[in-house]
Amino acid sequence: MLLRLSTLFVRTLREDPVDAEVASHKLLVRAGYIRRAAPGIYTWLPLGLRVLAKVELVVREEMAEAGAQEVHFPALLPREPYETTGRWTEYGPNIFRLKDRKGGDYLLAPTHEEVFTLLVKDLYSSYKDLPLALYQIQTKYRDEARPRAGLIRGREFIMKDAYSFDVDDDGLAASYQRQRDAYERIFTRLGLEYVIVAATSGAMGGSRSEEFLTPTPIGEDTFVRSAGGYAANVEAVTTVVPDTIADDDAPAAHVEDTPNTPTIDSLVAVANERFPRADRPWAAADTLKNVVLALVQPTGERTLLVVGLPGDRDVDLKRLEAWVAPAEVEAAGEADFAAHPELVKGYIGPGALGPNLDGTALDDEGRRAVRYLLDPRVVPGTRWITGANEPGRHVFDLVAGRDFTADGTVEAADVRAGDPAPDGSGPLELARGIEIGHIFALGRKYAQALGLSVLNQNGKAVVVTMGSYGIGVTRVLAALAEANHDDRGLAWPAGVAPAHVHVVATGRDAAVFEAAEALATTLSARGIEVLYDDRPKVSPGVKFADAELLGVPLVVVVGRGLAEGVVEVRPRVPAEDGSGVEQVPVAVAADRVAELVDGLLAR
Amino acid sequence: MLLRLSTLFVRTLREDPVDAEVASHKLLVRAGYIRRAAPGIYTWLPLGLRVLAKVELVVREEMAEAGAQEVHFPALLPREPYETTGRWTEYGPNIFRLKDRKGGDYLLAPTHEEVFTLLVKDLYSSYKDLPLALYQIQTKYRDEARPRAGLIRGREFIMKDAYSFDVDDDGLAASYQRQRDAYERIFTRLGLEYVIVAATSGAMGGSRSEEFLTPTPIGEDTFVRSAGGYAANVEAVTTVVPDTIADDDAPAAHVEDTPNTPTIDSLVAVANERFPRADRPWAAADTLKNVVLALVQPTGERTLLVVGLPGDRDVDLKRLEAWVAPAEVEAAGEADFAAHPELVKGYIGPGALGPNLDGTALDDEGRRAVRYLLDPRVVPGTRWITGANEPGRHVFDLVAGRDFTADGTVEAADVRAGDPAPDGSGPLELARGIEIGHIFALGRKYAQALGLSVLNQNGKAVVVTMGSYGIGVTRVLAALAEANHDDRGLAWPAGVAPAHVHVVATGRDAAVFEAAEALATTLSARGIEVLYDDRPKVSPGVKFADAELLGVPLVVVVGRGLAEGVVEVRPRVPAEDGSGVEQVPVAVAADRVAELVDGLLAR
Repeated sequence: MLLRLSTLFVRTLREDPVDAEVASHKLLVRAGYIRRAAPGIYTWLPLGLRVLAKVELVVREEMAEAGAQEVHFPALLPREPYETTGRWTEYGPNIFRLKDRKGGDYLLAPTHEEVFTLLVKDLYSSYKDLPLALYQIQTKYRDEARPRAGLIRGREFIMKDAYSFDVDDDGLAASYQRQRDAYERIFTRLGLEYVIVAATSGAMGGSRSEEFLTPTPIGEDTFVRSAGGYAANVEAVTTVVPDTIADDDAPAAHVEDTPNTPTIDSLVAVANERFPRADRPWAAADTLKNVVLALVQPTGERTLLVVGLPGDRDVDLKRLEAWVAPAEVEAAGEADFAAHPELVKGYIGPGALGPNLDGTALDDEGRRAVRYLLDPRVVPGTRWITGANEPGRHVFDLVAGRDFTADGTVEAADVRAGDPAPDGSGPLELARGIEIGHIFALGRKYAQALGLSVLNQNGKAVVVTMGSYGIGVTRVLAALAEANHDDRGLAWPAGVAPAHVHVVATGRDAAVFEAAEALATTLSARGIEVLYDDRPKVSPGVKFADAELLGVPLVVVVGRGLAEGVVEVRPRVPAEDGSGVEQVPVAVAADRVAELVDGLLAR
Repeated sequence: MLLRLSTLFVRTLREDPVDAEVASHKLLVRAGYIRRAAPGIYTWLPLGLRVLAKVELVVREEMAEAGAQEVHFPALLPREPYETTGRWTEYGPNIFRLKDRKGGDYLLAPTHEEVFTLLVKDLYSSYKDLPLALYQIQTKYRDEARPRAGLIRGREFIMKDAYSFDVDDDGLAASYQRQRDAYERIFTRLGLEYVIVAATSGAMGGSRSEEFLTPTPIGEDTFVRSAGGYAANVEAVTTVVPDTIADDDAPAAHVEDTPNTPTIDSLVAVANERFPRADRPWAAADTLKNVVLALVQPTGERTLLVVGLPGDRDVDLKRLEAWVAPAEVEAAGEADFAAHPELVKGYIGPGALGPNLDGTALDDEGRRAVRYLLDPRVVPGTRWITGANEPGRHVFDLVAGRDFTADGTVEAADVRAGDPAPDGSGPLELARGIEIGHIFALGRKYAQALGLSVLNQNGKAVVVTMGSYGIGVTRVLAALAEANHDDRGLAWPAGVAPAHVHVVATGRDAAVFEAAEALATTLSARGIEVLYDDRPKVSPGVKFADAELLGVPLVVVVGRGLAEGVVEVRPRVPAEDGSGVEQVPVAVAADRVAELVDGLLAR
């Protein structure tokens, strides 16, 4: 393969696109791999398409190795199956919906569980047909509220989505593991660092789910890991619950005037000054902060929720959203407070939220008017300073379990470095990553809803159990660009680079162009993929800058050295000690380049 | 490649799907290549996807050979560029439109001229950058009023769409020819018979357009050809216009009572009986039939049109629609006649439609209330019998030019076998075909509308001239199935078949399955694509029927013959003389099969 820059449909840009914030977005646009067609929607130019094809090939080979068979579903699908599983509604504004000329409801599918389930139901009927794994590499759509970071969060994107079908839980576990292993092989082959973390299932449902994240500071996902091997998306971290405390010795609750305590810090200072605790000073973690939030269901229904958590923690909206999915979370507004005069802003305490202190705020059936959930650290027996539901007053020594209860617990507090891992494997550290894969043991949710069952060995109908396994193919390409670039441009691993060698002819000497052409042709004939910068009248500086921007792993310069019979061969990314740049005699240049390419591809 | 039927995701059906009318649709569904997901929207199963990939590979190779570079555009595109060229409106109800969560208008693109134009404008600016040819193989959408015939007229389908960009007309002519040549190579390699016919450009615009049709009685397109080499889609045929006739000798027009003449035939009979013509009998072609139709613009605007044509011809709605594009044509209804009392149903004559006889039916500015167009055969001097605009009366010897005129001519009359070719190359014959490709010399319509110009050698901005070139990839697959089947199933050409060889193990003997497995594995190791029917407990009859339905070109039966040390090798389509079935010793079976496969692939 030989691509000539004189005719290749590409133009490099010196300036970053104005809407680009992350390196992969900037560089993929500047190097002429992609172009924006609309927010979150991109066009692929020839070089980008070549990289994409190579990523897809790796995915296809490993899916085949995992025994998954390739099919291809439409993107435009009718509403009915998604209505049956509830996702037509649950997706809320996050999917594209449309009507056909006859008024029929359709969506542009964000994922295909429903129709894969129906297809297997259409074809298969016996336990002997299972296990089965199917996959597709296909264009998906999500109407993201904030498309960002180029290919990382787009509205039209390419996914590999696989689905497994088994008769029983053991089968699902094996199918899940086969896909998990395939994912490890795929990301390893692509040279993409990854971490497998426990994850929440969100609107997808199911019993177990793990994400593959590639660590990078620009990642949208935060994950934690411990030295002892625990790893989880921050949304999936569970709080270590302290032991219940005997409350026999706790003083009775007492309400105190606490003027001028607008912050937790000022409250703690006043508490220590005026109402000191015998055993130790009050700390922020002794205050119970009650945060009013609004949950918006996909149907648009809006309800209030109060989260009670230690005053040294904040509510992490993403963690809370994972807990209340598919609802979305908003801050409560003035209208919400106006509708609930019992919620005294800044002084909200459990007394306004439950029957335990004064019986206020209950409806006719004894339920709280506003749902109240507590952080798991608020175990029975813990003593708190919290709002007294009157301006300027707080209640002290309010004991959980003795003086108040709630509707349950919630994982909504932020996770911090140093928090203990839930499995006891040590303190957590936090990092950020891009989600490049997500695997779900779905169980029977979709098969049950859509009636997919098979006859088992005893002739009895059993509901099939399923898994679903996604890789964001276009996002993986962006992640590769994030992981393989420097301040001068892209620097692709040889396995996914649009070409193996970038031959640059410099100067105006016809002999240079002849030699470069001969070398490019020879290399191409040997099966090496060559990008040849044959542009006349373009300066060496521009050509070198373009070579660094485009990111082909090996650069061969045919120029001034030709007079001495040599060409220069250098890696796109020089070794730290500066080695790797070679002056190679023209006669053996093709051999040497082929050898180097083999080495790069074997890495 | 070795696919085992015991695990391959496929189920054959004995019954035709209820919605299927044509063989390709019936067989592709019955053989488990595709499944319907919604009207005109299909899912591809593993075998179908394999054939599709092979068709796409041929297209890609020939596009590269033609110098076209591959890119990939989104399917989901914003309204603006299509608004600029007018096609947002012109497509009427034929495209899928939707809104994103912010209310922005989007479409699912049916074709991509606008965005290719904008992309080239984005990257290129000089004549030195041209000529340029780009293409994509991509999913397209059309909200067809009547999706039918499976893949032949779908709502989601795969197209190869290429676009050429040149500085001048000569460049466009050369680019057009390069694509035309590539199309010939593609259809020849696929073994698909094709006819290149002159076509209308429709809503696409442009100066020249040709279609590639594959002849088949189930085709939706009618085309004509002459022995002398003329070929055109019936929509593009132009009528041979007779010479003008001197009207000096024609008698004056006279109105006659013609009761009981509800048909052209009865009118001609009465005319010959009561008002005989001196030179020859009146014929149906002497009557002028005036047909009232309604044009519906994409905006929904509805206007009437009257077409006057010889009584021996009918209006061909598809020809008329090509003429009035992008308007669609409907029959006039009772409400239309009620709104135009001057149109006396069954007795409409030019007198009601123009100023020439009595000055009726003109608006204040002297224009006809209803537009009136004539068949090109109605030349000045021709004498007609036509309606007198009163029930039961006709006018005789009404002479075109002398007694009436119209707003112009229209190509709306049906074309018939025996009609003269417009280029004088002899009488036309009619046939039907499937449109598998369409190429357009677009000219400057899109570049002008969207501002794509480049600087020429003199530094002056010139508008780029474009071509666009489409192949319906999924439709080509259906056309291949139409051309390659018999009453037992599909019969693929080796180059696109999902496998080269179908190995069938029959009986229950373990030795048979061992021998078949060994042969299948050996063939696969030699690079031959093998479908191996390894299903235990399935009868030979079912296996043979499935092999014939699936349509792999070479079938190898490992069964009873094994006791005598032979396997049977037979082509899917037996020779007419029954030859081709061979009993091959097991020891040389792989060699013989490889030889036969080579022969099939070389065809």
